Order: sequence, then structure tokens, then C-alpha cells
Amino acid sequence: MTSGAQAKRFRLVVEYDGTAYGGWQVQPNAPSIQQSLIDAARPLSSSDVDVQGSGRTDAGVHACGQVAHLALVTRLEAGDVERALNARLPRDIRVLEVARASDSFHARFSARGKRYLYALETARRLSVFDRGRVWHVPGALSIEAMRAGAKELVGRHDFSAFSSKAGERPDNVRRVTAIRIRPARRTKLLVFVAGEGFLYNMVRTMVAALVAVGRSELDPADLKAALTHRDRARLPATAPPQGLYLWRVRYGPKADRGDGR
Amino acid sequence: MTSGAQAKRFRLVVEYDGTAYGGWQVQPNAPSIQQSLIDAARPLSSSDVDVQGSGRTDAGVHACGQVAHLALVTRLEAGDVERALNARLPRDIRVLEVARASDSFHARFSARGKRYLYALETARRLSVFDRGRVWHVPGALSIEAMRAGAKELVGRHDFSAFSSKAGERPDNVRRVTAIRIRPARRTKLLVFVAGEGFLYNMVRTMVAALVAVGRSELDPADLKAALTHRDRARLPATAPPQGLYLWRVRYGPKADRGDGR
Repeated sequence: MTSGAQAKRFRLVVEYDGTAYGGWQVQPNAPSIQQSLIDAARPLSSSDVDVQGSGRTDAGVHACGQVAHLALVTRLEAGDVERALNARLPRDIRVLEVARASDSFHARFSARGKRYLYALETARRLSVFDRGRVWHVPGALSIEAMRAGAKELVGRHDFSAFSSKAGERPDNVRRVTAIRIRPARRTKLLVFVAGEGFLYNMVRTMVAALVAVGRSELDPADLKAALTHRDRARLPATAPPQGLYLWRVRYGPKADRGDGR
Repeated sequence: MTSGAQAKRFRLVVEYDGTAYGGWQVQPNAPSIQQSLIDAARPLSSSDVDVQGSGRTDAGVHACGQVAHLALVTRLEAGDVERALNARLPRDIRVLEVARASDSFHARFSARGKRYLYALETARRLSVFDRGRVWHVPGALSIEAMRAGAKELVGRHDFSAFSSKAGERPDNVRRVTAIRIRPARRTKLLVFVAGEGFLYNMVRTMVAALVAVGRSELDPADLKAALTHRDRARLPATAPPQGLYLWRVRYGPKADRGDGR
């Protein structure tokens, strides 16, 4: 670079349908959300472009409010960047918001918390319009039992039992601030999970455990016991990715532009 | 055929996401719903298989309750046929119901009426999850004005002004029995249209006209005038296919198994 042009940092809020992607993160053998954003942003900057997200999402997982940041050497302002990115992005990825951010803002390290939505379909048959967007769990689920199970999970716990990679990390204590379970459109059940941080596959394992409680295959006390014993084997298999939506990322009042939305 | 095996006629109720198809009808250069059903049914019968629908749907148009019939030389009963078809069909086509029908039942000629749903999204931005499933009409729409416009259309009229192929047919009189307009999920608007029969593109032209009324680009009286003058030029362009859903097909009490659902 010969000019002294300075990079401007921008914060993005991104919505995506994860069906066609290998996940958020750049990877060799599958398209990724991150790479799509990099490709869309590259023509906007006279320097190399990198895009950092608040965290990864797995293959098939969706987002309604993923947050990312990137730095561009450009004269464009936030509104122009938003239009230019959306003009170049595939139609299953949309930038909902672009705002200037200070150089200290980091989508991952500045994040204070996340909210996820997990969508369940309890009808006997899965509609073609819900393919890839819900977990199909035909049959009755007791919302009361699921809410009792959720109460055991809210709070500060060692969530080793709820992660498929807990053994790889020294610290598996996380704080879940709220779990809300809400019926929707007759046969759907929406599970909202908010927390300060999550282990790998933690939300999907929590949802699988809550579904087992809703079917009376587990008691709420079994979830408590799994936490206490840090025993993954006491819990069912991880719920599939397509029901999971990264809903919001929360930032502290000092982080630029507030709460990620 | 050496055996005297008799063909059994079955009535199907079919749901499909029309995004990937050139429409209901078999066509040379695009996949079709009808061909997919024929392909799925062929292994079930020792005779040739044909599938007749209640009517065509265009490329990109969806169905929640298309009705079709087919004849199979088979020992299978309705439940087996349903399972076998769903096992072979692509995931964007589902058979919701299979029932035995008498040889006089014809999905098209026995039909007494149809109900369509047309979905509008009025939010500024189209969600990635609504791609291919709604018509994006950002901005305010007056539901009251649209309902007043709908009143002009309900009843028995010459609908020449509402068809792009009216000139090709001798009789363009049809009876629309009801139009209901209902807000849904904050920014969506659902238009339900019921009638005994429809001309080509009639529902989509009605919806485009009602949207123009909702934006104050047309008055309800303009719809009446278009009917009276049979003048397509007084109405806006046809609404796009992806917002349209064939919702239900109605059959008379004497037709087998009632009302198509």
C-alpha cells in the first residue's frame, strides 16, 4: 500500500439460511457464510479483507442476528457498505445492518451474551415448507415438564455434560440466563435460550434433553444429575442443526452501537 | 397384460414447494410436479401410470392441498400407496393423503371449487427465510381499502380483465365466493380467495389489483370499472408466482371422500 489510507471498522448484523453452507467458518471443501461475506466485501476495499464473527455456527444452522466485524480501506460509509454487500451476496445471506465501529470492537471478544432460538415441529407430518428449518419430533410433548427441566439448566453450572467437546476445554462453567418455551402456530414449539456463553453443541444438547423430558423419557431431576456428574452419557444425542437459529448477540454498553441489533 | 387385474383409482392430496419446478404440468425442459408423481408411482403398478391434477399451477407456485387422481394395477391399499409414494418423492413434494376413489372421480372435472392463499410481505426487507414464498411489497397497505376492493370482485362476473388469456376463451364468467384479507406475523398479509373456478392468472391479477388499491394507486371503483369494461389494461401487472399457494380443492358430496382434504 502506498497511500496512508486508514481502515474503517464496521459492525455487521447478518441473517442467513444455513442450509446450503458448511457452516459459518471458512473451510476447504464447502461454501461458508464467512467466505461469502469476504468475497462480497473484497471489491470494496483497497486492502485485504477479513471478516470475524461472534462465533461459529455449524453446517445447516441458521442466523437471524449473527454479528461480525470487518475493516475496509474505503471512502464508503456504512449505508453504502450495506447496499454494496447485499448487492453481491447470495440471496440466502442478507446484511441487516452495518454500523461504524471503533477499532477496539471485536465481534467475538466484545460479545457479552447470545440468544438462540430452536424450532421444533410436533405434527405427525413435516410440511415441505419446514424442510431444513425445524427439528421434526412428531408426538405430544409436555411443555410443563420441559419448563421444569429448563429450570434445572438456568443459572451458572459446569455444562460438561452438555457439550460434545467438553473434554478438550479446561473450563466448562457457563451461565444460562433464561430459557423460554413457547408454542407457536398450533404444532410448533419454540425454545429460546439466552446465556453469557455456550460450549460447543450446548444449545442443541440442551434442546435434545428438554425434548426427552417433554416425552417423559427423562425427568427434570435427570438433567440436574447430568450437570452434577458432568456425564454426557446420561443425555440423549445432540439435536440436529437445522432447528437452530443464532438469534441475537449482546454487547456491553461501551461496545459500539449497543446490543448487536 | 395377461392377467385380468383391474386398475384401482386413488385420490391424492399433495403439498409442494414449487420453487424448483417448471410448474405442475409435464413439460419438456423443466422438472414438474406431475412428472415427479408419475415417476414415484410407476414402480407401484403393472400398467402405465398417469396422474391428473385438479388443474395446473405455474412455475414457482406452491400447493398445500392440490388434488390429483391416478389408477394403479396393484394389490396395495391406500395407506401403502401413500407410504410408497412419499418414500420415492423428492423432499419438496409430499403426499398428505391417499384414498380410494370410484372410477368416475376425476380430480379436474369433479372439482366444484378451489381456495387459494396469496402471501404478501410488507416489511422493508425480505427475510432470507421468505425467499420464494411471498411477494415482497415493502410499504404500508390499507387493509380497509383492500377489503373494499375485494367486495367489488366477489360474486359472479366476467373476469376477462383479470386474465392474461381471456381472449382465447369463449366464456370468462366465473363466481368468486369469498376473499378474505388477514394480517399475520406483524408484517405479512394473507389473501384468501375462494371460487368455483378461475381463469388463467386470475388470482394473481386480483392480488396485484388489490395491492394497488391498498397503496391508493387504484380505487375500489376502478376494479368494478375494469370488470365492466373487461379491460386488462386498467389493472397492474400480474403478481409474481411465488406468493401463490393452491390451498384446497372442493368436491361435491357425491364425489368420493368429500372435499379434497
